[in-house]
Amino acid sequence: MSDVSVFWRRACEGTLPLRFVDWSLRGIGQVLFQDNALSGLLFLVAIGWGSYALDVPEVAISGLLGVLVATLTAMWLRVDGAGLAAGLYGYNAFLLGIALPTFLAVSPLLWVFVVLGAVVSVIATLAVASAVRPLNIPVLTAPFVLVTLVLLLAASAFSGVETATPAALGFIEPIPPEAADPLRPLAFLEGLAHSLSQVFVKGYVPSAVLILVGLAVGSPRAAGFALAGALIALVVAHLMGAESQLVTAGLVGFNPLLTAVALGAVFRVPGGRTAVYAILAAVFTVLAQGAMVAVITPFGVPTLTASFVLVTWLFLLAKPESSAASEPKS
Amino acid sequence: MSDVSVFWRRACEGTLPLRFVDWSLRGIGQVLFQDNALSGLLFLVAIGWGSYALDVPEVAISGLLGVLVATLTAMWLRVDGAGLAAGLYGYNAFLLGIALPTFLAVSPLLWVFVVLGAVVSVIATLAVASAVRPLNIPVLTAPFVLVTLVLLLAASAFSGVETATPAALGFIEPIPPEAADPLRPLAFLEGLAHSLSQVFVKGYVPSAVLILVGLAVGSPRAAGFALAGALIALVVAHLMGAESQLVTAGLVGFNPLLTAVALGAVFRVPGGRTAVYAILAAVFTVLAQGAMVAVITPFGVPTLTASFVLVTWLFLLAKPESSAASEPKS
Amino acid sequence: MSDVSVFWRRACEGTLPLRFVDWSLRGIGQVLFQDNALSGLLFLVAIGWGSYALDVPEVAISGLLGVLVATLTAMWLRVDGAGLAAGLYGYNAFLLGIALPTFLAVSPLLWVFVVLGAVVSVIATLAVASAVRPLNIPVLTAPFVLVTLVLLLAASAFSGVETATPAALGFIEPIPPEAADPLRPLAFLEGLAHSLSQVFVKGYVPSAVLILVGLAVGSPRAAGFALAGALIALVVAHLMGAESQLVTAGLVGFNPLLTAVALGAVFRVPGGRTAVYAILAAVFTVLAQGAMVAVITPFGVPTLTASFVLVTWLFLLAKPESSAASEPKS
Repeated sequence: MSDVSVFWRRACEGTLPLRFVDWSLRGIGQVLFQDNALSGLLFLVAIGWGSYALDVPEVAISGLLGVLVATLTAMWLRVDGAGLAAGLYGYNAFLLGIALPTFLAVSPLLWVFVVLGAVVSVIATLAVASAVRPLNIPVLTAPFVLVTLVLLLAASAFSGVETATPAALGFIEPIPPEAADPLRPLAFLEGLAHSLSQVFVKGYVPSAVLILVGLAVGSPRAAGFALAGALIALVVAHLMGAESQLVTAGLVGFNPLLTAVALGAVFRVPGGRTAVYAILAAVFTVLAQGAMVAVITPFGVPTLTASFVLVTWLFLLAKPESSAASEPKS
Repeated sequence: MSDVSVFWRRACEGTLPLRFVDWSLRGIGQVLFQDNALSGLLFLVAIGWGSYALDVPEVAISGLLGVLVATLTAMWLRVDGAGLAAGLYGYNAFLLGIALPTFLAVSPLLWVFVVLGAVVSVIATLAVASAVRPLNIPVLTAPFVLVTLVLLLAASAFSGVETATPAALGFIEPIPPEAADPLRPLAFLEGLAHSLSQVFVKGYVPSAVLILVGLAVGSPRAAGFALAGALIALVVAHLMGAESQLVTAGLVGFNPLLTAVALGAVFRVPGGRTAVYAILAAVFTVLAQGAMVAVITPFGVPTLTASFVLVTWLFLLAKPESSAASEPKS
Repeated sequence: MSDVSVFWRRACEGTLPLRFVDWSLRGIGQVLFQDNALSGLLFLVAIGWGSYALDVPEVAISGLLGVLVATLTAMWLRVDGAGLAAGLYGYNAFLLGIALPTFLAVSPLLWVFVVLGAVVSVIATLAVASAVRPLNIPVLTAPFVLVTLVLLLAASAFSGVETATPAALGFIEPIPPEAADPLRPLAFLEGLAHSLSQVFVKGYVPSAVLILVGLAVGSPRAAGFALAGALIALVVAHLMGAESQLVTAGLVGFNPLLTAVALGAVFRVPGGRTAVYAILAAVFTVLAQGAMVAVITPFGVPTLTASFVLVTWLFLLAKPESSAASEPKS
């Protein structure tokens, strides 16, 4: 693998087109925090396979279009070279690209939305980076959530773009916990897998396996925390009385999964305290996800990864050792 | 004109009452970013004429009351002299003053709301200025939006103040784009003009002409971007399938117009890239405006200039050259 | 009193268990800004008495559990010693502890919520402290509002936790102001007292007297501004046409009361201008409270102390002397 990696790096150095491909693949890899072209390639194959199998090829095409447009936009805006090369300007547009055709009907205007959204996602990435820099926290997927929600809400306000079936929105409806049991072995494994593939807005088991491999290629620790986060989500949501079908479909699990990976394997020094802290955050993300669904349901749009962003920001902002909550008196 | 300007400056230097008038007029001018007493005077005449012609004289009176109370409040609070002299403590109260009697029925409590709102708008201006200073972005009309929405929502919560006809709220209802055509020449010109006068919460063509003259007096470039912003809004909203009557009434256009002026002619170095950037922002403001209407409709209040504020902040925060989105690892 | 205080301080120095009790009592005292164990003890007795008299002992038990868990969590997270000793990591959890059983039915999961919420409230306190430090404003009860709303909304999204009677939510329904009169002497005194005890989410006159004594022990000025804030709220809400029963129940008064104490007696240098400023803020809090109730009602959750937090932040952020609203041009 190391030989391939060295060969790829040398090939990229020589030609801009290859570098452009490298930046875009890393953009896809950054959806799960991997500055790694191979991870990105595996994620892309997973999404392509999944969207082909589920008969929605437009989802993969739109995601690819989004990340390519975003990389071009970042070059036009002359962003910082290191961020561009690490794929930090691509992952929000890739997610936007796969989310829009999931929640909107296919039409010429949809493709205009994807291109416009990808361009604005780069501007939103720069803006959020400016806003959170004084707080020393990362951008995460806030630009994806912001721009996608604006476009989805605009689609509901104007008649030119039609929304897809509301079933796709995955609202958590409260039903008695006895009605079904997502902790039966098969349903449990399915829930785990779907939580992984729902990070990319689709539930499909073979895709999930590829995503897990891609994640493990970049960081075995991240893969471990992803499984732990999904497992926590399944158990907590079931105990809280969430609808079993939604749990099994992975719609409750992808946000806690992202929180667990971010706090357990990416943004904090590894260790026992970090692990406990990440697990606590994943548990709270399940509740925050439920709260957000309750707030956003009347507006007919999904919460996307908003609960992951907010809980991870909250837990990253809390830096006990260096901080004093002492209230200033002026 | 220069002689009049010099004469006015000298007259102001001598007497506080004249300086007070100067500060208040500049406050009105700042609604469209003009630190210019003549622009402010022309805007005031435009509003006065429009509110007289539309038989709502209370609107102009309330606007004037708002800016005078705000200027007095700023003096009492001992704000910075340069900001006071540039009218930066007045424009939010002027907008609040013309918005309140547009959305609330006339009553003694309405006038209490105008005075209280004008006072608090100065405090909100200072507060927002403190909050956004580390980010190096301007206050814009955020204090107007914040304080006016609090008062309008409070009016719906308490029975002492009655809301005006909901028709005034200008919700964008989705109807088929074929139903009418705002791009016919006459409707198109009307839409352009109303987009300008709706910046001051009213649709009236003669007012729009006066506002355009007032704007051109202060900055011809700003007048050009105002027309460009309104034009973009008309075309984009029509393509999106917005209701033609609302487009023609200027209710879709005033926010993109403000965005285009702010980004194209006020807060960025002029040039080709700035113009492209401003046009992109104006297009996105049309979508953001639609999204906000979808969110705020259930609460029975208007979005005011919220979409302009948020999109302009987003595009000003994004400073590619100096910024790195690189995620910090702690 | 001084002797008792000295004796207590010495006793605490010797033993960790006593220090732990001291920190927790100060945590309760900080609900009304008192870094004072005796104030905290009197508040605790007031809540205990009130919840016993109103036949909801779980409220006092849950509050106590919350503050103890939060103090332990703060120790585990190794927060700054001065903040811990002043009770700054306890008051949000105490409020969360008394709020949860007020709005949710008693069940095993409720107690899990209280413990989890208390733990997360400490993390939220650290996070909000980090976020507001550059702005030089205090944390106030933002962590309480944030974490409690997440848990209450999650309870409405999942079927495992049941919400209590909606009557407890205290929505302000608009009825004609003539229908009843909260300014009759007895109703007026009741309204004053309940505004005080509603700071701790309960309306009970004897508790209110104890709370006032506890507050006066810590700061007579704070007690004065508490009464002034409650009085302003009663009069303003009545003039606005708020429902008299809610005014008398103290549900309109506790937020303006907190604003008046914070701005008049805690965070600003005492004086005539400060008093005028605090009264203005208290008046605006009544309107902000009405606005928030209008926004939050469809979601079936209470606004808690959100209007106090936002208005107090707004008025503290506005620092006229040092600040310029001058808009930067880049």
